[in-house]
Amino acid sequence: MQLTDLETPALVLDRNRLDHNIARMRQHIIELGVALRPHVKTAKSMDVVQRALEGQPGTPEHRPGGITVSTLKEAEYFLSNGVTDILYAVGIAPNKLAHVAGLMGRGADMTILLDSAEAADMVAAKGETLGVQFAALIEIDSDGHRSGIKPGDPRLLDIGKRLHGRPGSSLRGVMTHAGDSYNSDSIGAIRAMAERERAAVVQCAQALREAGLPCPVVSVGSTPTATYSERLDGVTEVRAGVFMFFDLFMAGLGVCTTDDIALSVLTSVIGHQQDRNWIITDAGWMALSRDRGTANQRVDQGYGLVCDLAGRPIDDLIVAGTNQEHGIIADRNGKPIDMTMFPVGMLLRILPNHACATAAQHPQYHAIAGSPVVEAVWPRFSGW
Amino acid sequence: MQLTDLETPALVLDRNRLDHNIARMRQHIIELGVALRPHVKTAKSMDVVQRALEGQPGTPEHRPGGITVSTLKEAEYFLSNGVTDILYAVGIAPNKLAHVAGLMGRGADMTILLDSAEAADMVAAKGETLGVQFAALIEIDSDGHRSGIKPGDPRLLDIGKRLHGRPGSSLRGVMTHAGDSYNSDSIGAIRAMAERERAAVVQCAQALREAGLPCPVVSVGSTPTATYSERLDGVTEVRAGVFMFFDLFMAGLGVCTTDDIALSVLTSVIGHQQDRNWIITDAGWMALSRDRGTANQRVDQGYGLVCDLAGRPIDDLIVAGTNQEHGIIADRNGKPIDMTMFPVGMLLRILPNHACATAAQHPQYHAIAGSPVVEAVWPRFSGW
Repeated sequence: MQLTDLETPALVLDRNRLDHNIARMRQHIIELGVALRPHVKTAKSMDVVQRALEGQPGTPEHRPGGITVSTLKEAEYFLSNGVTDILYAVGIAPNKLAHVAGLMGRGADMTILLDSAEAADMVAAKGETLGVQFAALIEIDSDGHRSGIKPGDPRLLDIGKRLHGRPGSSLRGVMTHAGDSYNSDSIGAIRAMAERERAAVVQCAQALREAGLPCPVVSVGSTPTATYSERLDGVTEVRAGVFMFFDLFMAGLGVCTTDDIALSVLTSVIGHQQDRNWIITDAGWMALSRDRGTANQRVDQGYGLVCDLAGRPIDDLIVAGTNQEHGIIADRNGKPIDMTMFPVGMLLRILPNHACATAAQHPQYHAIAGSPVVEAVWPRFSGW
Repeated sequence: MQLTDLETPALVLDRNRLDHNIARMRQHIIELGVALRPHVKTAKSMDVVQRALEGQPGTPEHRPGGITVSTLKEAEYFLSNGVTDILYAVGIAPNKLAHVAGLMGRGADMTILLDSAEAADMVAAKGETLGVQFAALIEIDSDGHRSGIKPGDPRLLDIGKRLHGRPGSSLRGVMTHAGDSYNSDSIGAIRAMAERERAAVVQCAQALREAGLPCPVVSVGSTPTATYSERLDGVTEVRAGVFMFFDLFMAGLGVCTTDDIALSVLTSVIGHQQDRNWIITDAGWMALSRDRGTANQRVDQGYGLVCDLAGRPIDDLIVAGTNQEHGIIADRNGKPIDMTMFPVGMLLRILPNHACATAAQHPQYHAIAGSPVVEAVWPRFSGW
């Protein structure tokens, strides 16, 4: 099967780029002496994730083979594929605890996350009711971008004490996610953010230990900080996921180049509006996602960068607009497009703004490696 | 089962509102004397669409029971559910024609769409090769927003002649979609757009007939213009889909009120950032979609309007920010939120900006009707 045999739109995965991206991150994290716990929220595919799990270094304490999930559906799927060490890295809601207990009953070593005394008490009580001991990390806020307890906040020890050694709960450690690194304006700023992320969580781990509480896991992670971190003293694991694929947002941030982007959406030209200087395609926001993450970067890539069938960017063509199943391609500088070069039926590939959002729209990856031959079709899933 | 028994996030569909929205549109289109051909791109569920197909009026020429689809996956699914009259309302790409022929071979009366001579020739040639006669509409551009031939453009007759009466193709008529109605700033502007939409397609139908070409189908449609059209002389069918559910974008446009919105996303409070005045939930952009369609309307609803479990909006709370599986709720005016009113585990419902984009993220609807009891779980699908 070739790309030219597919119905469009379809998701294409360049396996060479995927493998290169994984190898580079693995090498970097190995050099820093900690374990990589891949975040599977983008991939949602064992075919992809097993490549990120291969050759993981680590001691038992680093729990090699572990993954990070953003939904319990991911936990279900990867457990059914033999991955047992699973960190569910979204603050736990009560209505999910029975499900977590069920996963534990089927062999998963689940770690959950929370950042309040009320959640800690709720987890401890529910664990006791269900007859399981939930292992929890306390979320640390290293950058003010979302959830977590700030370093130095006395609530940290209170939460730790509420979790530790109860029949229904145990304290497994701390974690933080420097999501604000996505807003960095330079590589230097990302490096500083990585150090801030490390320092925040190590400080909290020390505070817990000084209070006599256990803290075996000290977890950090975001693709930008993982890429540019220079030291990880005191950290036990790094979580990152989008690095496997990369995207235009990461390229705009300086974390990769467009040549590293492993995902693209195959689309067909379905028409033209000569007077508007538009090429119309069948990849709309349903196929590309509504993500406009590059809108506030130095280079606005619209809904994606237009490439030929071989994956090479074409001049200054971007997807300037979308409807549900229509894309509108235009020249970013308004230069007239020679429409005869883009006949109806021509295949193009669109590099996405945000790999997580674009992949989520598709039921499968079409894996290629340096040619238009589709080597494999790897199923993926969405939802909860 | 009750809403309180669900794992969050989950998609909730208020069946009373759905039925009310469908009845209102049906009544309006009946009064205008034409057939409604529901667009199923939002619903993607037979449980929903059969309610929109019930009691369709029409003559054989109006082909009651017909639907509009945006993907061939929708065509496959609805054909397997007994719907045979299917308009695929996205300009056809060559790589889909064998699939269309396959659907025809299994009993579907397929209508395809195109807007160029090259596409017409390609369809006629492929039809002959495959031994089927593809029935096509010519897309008319009534508002400059996307695809189609403008009224008065001589290419219309050229395309019609290329399609008509060939072994591989036939001309079935014309259609237009006034997508620019989404940018209207008043009900008066929507009414004017509806008349422009009608006039454009009727003018083109007349031009084809005067040239001796057939034009049995004269199709218009968009939820705003369908809602406010005052006459449909010369039109044979109206296509609309989002009217079944409505959303904050349509409410902002004046096409419905927030009380008409039938879809919402059930979510749990998972934490708070008191100093930021934020409530953190487990409905991020994966559950709500990345759609920010209200950003340029008079009232920016963020990523959605926050309601209690009964579906009543709570003060001025909106989802001000999202990550993949996290929502950040804030007060739109910055008024301090009493966090004790929103404990961890509390269930909220978020009204979406864009029903099509939000529903697309979910594998099923949880249907309720005036109480928290889940009456039914209706599966839906995504992808191609």
